[in-house]
Order: sequence, then structure tokens, then C-alpha cells
Amino acid sequence: MITAKDNELIKDTAKLMSSAKHRREKDCFVAEGVRLCVDGVLSGAQITHFLYTNTAQKKYPEEFARVSAYAQKTVEISEALFKKLSDTAAPQGFLCIVKRLDKSIGSFTISNQGRYAALENIQDPQNLGTILRTAEALGTDGVILSSDCCDIYSPKVIRGSMGAVFRVPIMIAEQFTDFIRTVTKQGIPTFASTPHEADDLHTVDFSKGGIMLIGNEGNGLKQETIGACRQSVRINMKGRAESLNAAAAAAILLYALQG
Amino acid sequence: MITAKDNELIKDTAKLMSSAKHRREKDCFVAEGVRLCVDGVLSGAQITHFLYTNTAQKKYPEEFARVSAYAQKTVEISEALFKKLSDTAAPQGFLCIVKRLDKSIGSFTISNQGRYAALENIQDPQNLGTILRTAEALGTDGVILSSDCCDIYSPKVIRGSMGAVFRVPIMIAEQFTDFIRTVTKQGIPTFASTPHEADDLHTVDFSKGGIMLIGNEGNGLKQETIGACRQSVRINMKGRAESLNAAAAAAILLYALQG
Repeated sequence: MITAKDNELIKDTAKLMSSAKHRREKDCFVAEGVRLCVDGVLSGAQITHFLYTNTAQKKYPEEFARVSAYAQKTVEISEALFKKLSDTAAPQGFLCIVKRLDKSIGSFTISNQGRYAALENIQDPQNLGTILRTAEALGTDGVILSSDCCDIYSPKVIRGSMGAVFRVPIMIAEQFTDFIRTVTKQGIPTFASTPHEADDLHTVDFSKGGIMLIGNEGNGLKQETIGACRQSVRINMKGRAESLNAAAAAAILLYALQG
Repeated sequence: MITAKDNELIKDTAKLMSSAKHRREKDCFVAEGVRLCVDGVLSGAQITHFLYTNTAQKKYPEEFARVSAYAQKTVEISEALFKKLSDTAAPQGFLCIVKRLDKSIGSFTISNQGRYAALENIQDPQNLGTILRTAEALGTDGVILSSDCCDIYSPKVIRGSMGAVFRVPIMIAEQFTDFIRTVTKQGIPTFASTPHEADDLHTVDFSKGGIMLIGNEGNGLKQETIGACRQSVRINMKGRAESLNAAAAAAILLYALQG
């Protein structure tokens, strides 16, 4: 059982939780909590380490058996250490170190009639997590992210997504605007959401599916990205304009896209 | 200028930020940040104290003049003290103590053709803040809350609502289910949102407005509350059922209610 906080594995885990750079370098991320660890197993992700506490093993025997049988290494750590490591107020005593998944361009294909979300420069991890969760709940076929979105592997995104990061097809596009321009030319309907001049969501034909683009919390989509889309759409707000939270706007937009 | 953290005003302010009980007893709450303080002035709320830092006064001279002319007392506090007091990572140096507003039953009337949200036992302050912000953006005419919702005057709700707490008519119903039953009998359309047996949102007639009810994050609406409504409605989820975040669900439901 590990009890020392200067243990290499513990130091590395703490760094994986706090640093996006370290996650990239090690090509790993952390999933904390019983449900997220089981989600990792179910999704077939590669789990290099499963860290647990004695209390958790007793409290969740089935889940413990499942995750420990699957993980490459299973390591007990002290309750005190887990509490220090944990990102939450009431830690459950389950934590997995998981290999990052393939989120490169082409990790899934955009198909005719498919329904996708594309996110440009979303900065708030909570918003990103919620949008991924919403995308999954509404049956969105995949999510495309610009590379300047916040890190999908940050603990806040993973938790906020309720594990959707493990299940929803996601790709990160380095050349986001070019990617959108290309698929638009290929005939995929692309919809730029904007509070400015645009067609009211109620009047738009979503019967052929397509890609709904959602922009940065403060600034929305870049002008050139809007220009790369087939059509601009807006949520008709009867109250104060431009004041929807990005995740709330995404929920309305993705629901509309379902047709 | 106040510099001592054991100053009575500072201790009281800190307690107003952390304790719902203290807010009730003092009948006051705290609005922090330049925009929220100005929102308080614009809404005509009674501001008993305006606490500011020297840096903030220089940085926001117009807003400073506006809020200080309106507040009953204006008090400078040291930068170090403000940082300790503040709820945010990068405090702006503006903080108002505001008298609680009238949120009792009857503080607004439910009118025919009006569109309202009714929230039962929402527990997460961030969700509640986002729902109030969404309600305002979509032009909802008012929000009814059950008395077991989290405190609308908590700093997280105030901030998450982007000041909507100052502008959206809100009432807190001690006897929430009875209230809904009564308005239903009076002919107001009441819609219970539930993931279970219910009519698909797409098929529901919202042309006469009404009240959209949204329940607790984990458990949804109480059975007796569902029974008090005219109709049950559900968001048709093509993905994993029951997995929408409450604020995301509320956005879809309130947008649909707008018709």
C-alpha cells in the first residue's frame, strides 16, 4: 500500500490531473470515481493503473473486481493520500490512469444524414463537459473540436461529461475552419450558430442532418468559420440578447438538429 | 479604509457569502463584481453597503461613481482583504450588500398566455444560476421555485445567473405542489417534464403558454407534483436516456415552451 505522497506514481497522477501538458507528454489522463472507472472498462480504453482505497474495495466489491481484473496494475493507496489526490470533496476511492484515446482527424467519418456538433474555442471545462454529455444524450453521432478548445482530458471535463468522453466519437481538428470548409464543399450541411444576422432556428430544415457549429463563450464563432458554413442559424431570444450560456445554447441547438 | 479582517462589516460580509441561514437572518445577500453591482443599481434593489478597492475605483471610474452614488454606505477596503473576502480567483474589487428582494407567493401573478418555469428541489447552485439566466434570455415571464431549492442568494447562483436574479420575476412557493394544483385548476396549462411515460415535446401545443416544471437533478419531479399538472412531457432522447444535465434539459424545455 502506498502511503507516501512523494511516491513516483502518486506524483505523476497528481500532475496528470493538474497539467494538460503532462497529459500530452505521458499520453494519459485520469478518470476518478466508481462510475467513470467502470465507464473506462466498458469502453475498452487501456487502463494502465487502478488506484483504490481499502474502504472503496469493501464498499464497491463488484466494481472493484471488474476494474482490477481489467487494469494492467492495481495499487492500493492510503485513505489520507487518496483524499489529497482527489479532485472532489467526497472521494469514492477509485481512480484510473487511462491511455488517451485516438481523437485525431479521421478517427471517425462524417456521413451523409449524420448529426454532429463542432465546437470552436470552448474555454470552460464545465461547459465542454456538459456539451459532450448533452451530445451523447441527444444521440449526436460525433463531436469535432478545434484544437484551441480546453483539454477534453481535464478532470472537470471528464466528470462533467458523465463519461461521454469514453463513448461519443470525438475528433480534434488542428485546421478547424479548413475542415469545415472542406466538408461543406462535399455537401454536408453545416450550420453556424450566431446571435447576429442568421436564420431563425425554427425555419431551418434539419431533415438531412449535418454539423451544428458552436463558438467561444464570449466571442462566438470566428468570422471565417461562419463564412465556411452553408447557413447561419440563431436561437430566437425573446429576452435579453446574447445572454445564453454556451452549454444551454448547445442543448437547444443540438436538440433542433435532431429534427 | 478597512484593513482588518476582524472588522465587524467584513466578518458579516464573509458570513453573508457562506451562510444561507445568515442571509435569511440579516435579510441581505452579496453581489460581487462590477457588472452585478451595476445590475443591482439598475434593478432598483436596496444596496446597504458598497465595498470597493482603490484599484477598482481607478479602473472602473464610471461604474464606481454610479454604484457609490446609489449605495447607502460606500466603504474602501484593502486589496489584501478584498482578495480574502472574494469568491473568485480574480476579484474585480466591487462588492455590494443588497437587501433581499420580495420573492413571496404573489410577488407576481400568473397570467393567461404567460410562459413560466417552475423548479422543484434543484440542488446545484450552478444549475439554478444557469436556469435563471436561460429563463431570462428566452423571455420567460417568471420563475416559481419550491422552497427546498438551493438558496437563490448564494454567490454561485447570483453569478451563474449573470444578474438574472435581479431582473426575472421569481417567487418561492412553500406549498409548491398545492400551488401547481391550484393554477392547473384555474386553467393554466402546466407541463411536468419527466423522462418516463409522457408526450414527446414535439407533439405538445404550447400556443397558450403555461408553466414548465423541472425537477431535481437526480430524482426529477415528485410523483404528486407530476399528478398536479395538466400534462407530462418528455425530451425525446435518441442517445442514452435520462442523462441530460438539469440546466441543459431546462434550456430545451423552456425554448419549446416559447413555441
